[in-house]
Amino acid sequence: MKTRAAVAFEAKKPLEIVELDLQGPKEGEVLVEIKATGICHTDAYTLDGHDSEGIFPSVLGHEGAGIVREIGPGVTSVKPDDHVIPLYTPECRQCKSCLSGKTNLCTAIRATQGKGVMPDGTSRFSYKGETIYHYMGCSTFSNFVVMPEIALANIRKDAPFDKACYIGCGVTTGVGAVIYTNKIQAGDNVIVFGLGGIGLNVLQAARMVGAGKIIGVDINNEKAAWGKMFGMTHFVNPTEIDGDIVAHLVELTGGGADYTFDCTGNTTVMRQALEACHRGWGVSTVIGVAEAGKEIATRPFQLVTGRVWKGSAFGGARGRTDVPKLVDWYMDKKIEIDPLITHTFSLEEINKGFDLMHAGKSVRGVVIF
Amino acid sequence: MKTRAAVAFEAKKPLEIVELDLQGPKEGEVLVEIKATGICHTDAYTLDGHDSEGIFPSVLGHEGAGIVREIGPGVTSVKPDDHVIPLYTPECRQCKSCLSGKTNLCTAIRATQGKGVMPDGTSRFSYKGETIYHYMGCSTFSNFVVMPEIALANIRKDAPFDKACYIGCGVTTGVGAVIYTNKIQAGDNVIVFGLGGIGLNVLQAARMVGAGKIIGVDINNEKAAWGKMFGMTHFVNPTEIDGDIVAHLVELTGGGADYTFDCTGNTTVMRQALEACHRGWGVSTVIGVAEAGKEIATRPFQLVTGRVWKGSAFGGARGRTDVPKLVDWYMDKKIEIDPLITHTFSLEEINKGFDLMHAGKSVRGVVIF
Repeated sequence: MKTRAAVAFEAKKPLEIVELDLQGPKEGEVLVEIKATGICHTDAYTLDGHDSEGIFPSVLGHEGAGIVREIGPGVTSVKPDDHVIPLYTPECRQCKSCLSGKTNLCTAIRATQGKGVMPDGTSRFSYKGETIYHYMGCSTFSNFVVMPEIALANIRKDAPFDKACYIGCGVTTGVGAVIYTNKIQAGDNVIVFGLGGIGLNVLQAARMVGAGKIIGVDINNEKAAWGKMFGMTHFVNPTEIDGDIVAHLVELTGGGADYTFDCTGNTTVMRQALEACHRGWGVSTVIGVAEAGKEIATRPFQLVTGRVWKGSAFGGARGRTDVPKLVDWYMDKKIEIDPLITHTFSLEEINKGFDLMHAGKSVRGVVIF
Repeated sequence: MKTRAAVAFEAKKPLEIVELDLQGPKEGEVLVEIKATGICHTDAYTLDGHDSEGIFPSVLGHEGAGIVREIGPGVTSVKPDDHVIPLYTPECRQCKSCLSGKTNLCTAIRATQGKGVMPDGTSRFSYKGETIYHYMGCSTFSNFVVMPEIALANIRKDAPFDKACYIGCGVTTGVGAVIYTNKIQAGDNVIVFGLGGIGLNVLQAARMVGAGKIIGVDINNEKAAWGKMFGMTHFVNPTEIDGDIVAHLVELTGGGADYTFDCTGNTTVMRQALEACHRGWGVSTVIGVAEAGKEIATRPFQLVTGRVWKGSAFGGARGRTDVPKLVDWYMDKKIEIDPLITHTFSLEEINKGFDLMHAGKSVRGVVIF
């Protein structure tokens, strides 16, 4: 069949909207009509050539929502007309990682996914006879995609695609870091460094679970109003305080936070986030993606005196098990998504979204097919 | 009253055995007759002037066992003739840290302990009218000491002092890191870097809880036999393997260890210990004390992909609650101590123990009063 798609033929060039050939689903695979997809900074990172493992030509996009149109042999967990969110972190429920009960980082199809192909080693996309590669196992910048069954979360049908798609990455990454990676409890003090989309989602999850002080840290004062909208109780601009930001935050939390989150990707901030934790039990979680080659550092005394340094990928959420719950929470108004979507585009306008990100705008764009 | 004690009058000088004046216990305090004390590397570290917060003149020693001889007003948890282990990490059961249920790092008397005095701000020791300071809240190189009640573990009377004293520091630090800091379970794979006294205690705790592979890593092949005696199943000498030690250990554990421990104090090894953890859930615990100013570093990707970096002090053990259990485990032969004691000295011979440590010997000396 044919599908309209925005193709990254090479790095650092605008996407091109073309008609691709798409092979139908093989065993264990599913054809999905993508109804909406977010444009995430990770897509821009790859398109800009910063990802050393980026593969071209490919169909980018990893934050989508759509409808099952056809299933291959052996598929049992979804059927045509089901609504789904594609998962760049699948959940096979059979690999060592899934069975550990300790991580969401399923390894069932990691090797092929990293190579831009389906689990059988081939791509379903082609253009004029040439292979076009998949991206993050999703490629949601295509109107139709073929996905492994284990990489589809089956969600309720009344959730709007143009909001639910955001649960495919940013919402789950932020909310899950609170709920799944850290199991934060009512009354816990939380500090969030960086109030972009991920940071705001961390804030609202902290609010949802009844956290105590919910402190937002950002060098941009315009983020304060956004933070408050998502549950922040205190705003700190490190450029506007006297002295050391860590000492300031330790004082503000009466000894340090129970939980801190880095949502900046800045390794200096990651260190501050660790050291702003409470002696004895404070946990700092790295969510932000650092520049290639950058390292985090601290004195080991910080750990020996009880602080814990950890990370979170896709919010620690198991894709098929937990993503449908986040859709419920959105529909139940426990979490908000609507204000986070700043722009909507048609597929033909998709490069506008990248242009806004390149211009440094706080933008969360969604493409509606 | 008078007490015989080995006094550190100044850094980098041998201890001097003298008769000190000792004030009796005030409210909430206890007079203890020390029957045996270990000589630990931390004592040598302070005596050698490496501890920037070291105070002189003082009575060193923090790894003792003895008998309660007198109690001050208000003391209820011990009585004369009780056998006790002094605790450099007390357990008040009332401070924010104790009540958190998340840490053993009681803060009730931390400020005064760090200044070498009792909670009322004064020392009980003096020599010819001059103040002699306490050390780590213990000063077990004195035949008699005054301790706060909250810093005494009440232990069974049939435990020999010359072994039980080691539970006051090294045994609990190593065993507790497995049992309390990490709650390691049967079948978990464990790697221990550094097979000194702490490392051996980590090994035997891993054996006690039924760990899977128990891998010891040391650059000294003579440690292999010791490791095996304490439960090690595999020995790795990093200087004798081809290629990268981390890759070797990841292969040996089928993807990385569930738990790793640094017992070296070397920050390069601490990084290896983290990176030898299993993706998704491996936990690395820093136990060793690093040189002043040294920092640990890694790529944040190690954390984002599920490894956890933490630390352990006094094995995460609550002194009054957990130390008596470790004494039971020793008496029940669940853990071994006897082979770890390499030398016994009289108080007059105590400098011999420091001389052996300075000569780089693997030595675990105990002074018997």
